[in-house]
Amino acid sequence: MEFSSKIIEQAVDAFAQLPGVGKKTALRFVLHVIKQEQYKTDNFSKLINQLKTDLKFCTKCHTISEQDICEICANPLRDEKIICVVQDYRDVLAIENTGLYKGHYHVLGGLISPLEGITPSSLNIESLTTKLEANVINEIILALNATMEGETTSFYIFRKIAPYQVKLSAIARGIAVGDELEYADEVTLGRSILNRIPFDSLLKK
Amino acid sequence: MEFSSKIIEQAVDAFAQLPGVGKKTALRFVLHVIKQEQYKTDNFSKLINQLKTDLKFCTKCHTISEQDICEICANPLRDEKIICVVQDYRDVLAIENTGLYKGHYHVLGGLISPLEGITPSSLNIESLTTKLEANVINEIILALNATMEGETTSFYIFRKIAPYQVKLSAIARGIAVGDELEYADEVTLGRSILNRIPFDSLLKK
Repeated sequence: MEFSSKIIEQAVDAFAQLPGVGKKTALRFVLHVIKQEQYKTDNFSKLINQLKTDLKFCTKCHTISEQDICEICANPLRDEKIICVVQDYRDVLAIENTGLYKGHYHVLGGLISPLEGITPSSLNIESLTTKLEANVINEIILALNATMEGETTSFYIFRKIAPYQVKLSAIARGIAVGDELEYADEVTLGRSILNRIPFDSLLKK
Repeated sequence: MEFSSKIIEQAVDAFAQLPGVGKKTALRFVLHVIKQEQYKTDNFSKLINQLKTDLKFCTKCHTISEQDICEICANPLRDEKIICVVQDYRDVLAIENTGLYKGHYHVLGGLISPLEGITPSSLNIESLTTKLEANVINEIILALNATMEGETTSFYIFRKIAPYQVKLSAIARGIAVGDELEYADEVTLGRSILNRIPFDSLLKK
């Protein structure tokens, strides 16, 4: 695509770096911004700057936070003996939105993926074992995607953690609430039978 | 969705105003920006500002331009007696990329759509008739989408232009190059038969 203006071209290139955005979509975004009211554009541009200047990663759990220690890690009402290991900030939000978890988190910052060049050393795994050495953790819950990368990462952490006296669990895989058995894939259905649970535990929810 | 940070929340809201972007996609964008190198974020934020400060609309054809008069309108080699009426800047780019049009443009800035509250008065239609009054235009080509809104707008302009001595044409509707007849819809196929063209005109391309 050839543009009549250098500024449009550069702005399209900048928007096209966002995940899943191609040049055509980027151009739609650019035209939208041009037509927006001035104050909205000023605000948009300012917020993008603030994302870098005002946000940091929590030094304890590595989630995104405005403080050095995030609100969850700083909350005395939450159980610091349980750590839920997740891929990124979005998973923290998703689990927080369930309102059913009251422990701490540990954000890996990605999943092991040799194809994308993401090795264990580029993830926050070392700091997890450091936490275990302090001997205050009772349980680690692995809450990673049910994908090849997620399973690989879970297994890697399982082996790293093995030397420590800590309970290791993983979130349940099974039929999603509202789903029909007929359309579930065999692996999920098979696992949901192997990992069946006492019926009365369902009644409590 | 509840966010742990006001800045993230505001940034997600700002990104979610882009066309076709929901809150989940906006959050992906925000996380991408947070992880980006500092200079890229600075550049991104600066470019968004520049879209408002350095760009304007051409006073002749209403397309986006860095000057008061756009490069196309300012080019003496282009035929100012022919005007191609399009919806927006993207259509100018698309037609320019064909390399087959050497006239001027007139950008409406949208299409008539009562449902979205876009009336003829909110589009650049008045300035088109003003151009016609100067009596230098030979032909007007309507190049609008083949949708309900596009056809409505074409018909509206057709009636507005009727009093003037000017040739009015519309871009051809028909089977796209590379398409198979079998899968074409009936309306398009029907029109392509009614508006059939001398075979030797195809040989010239």
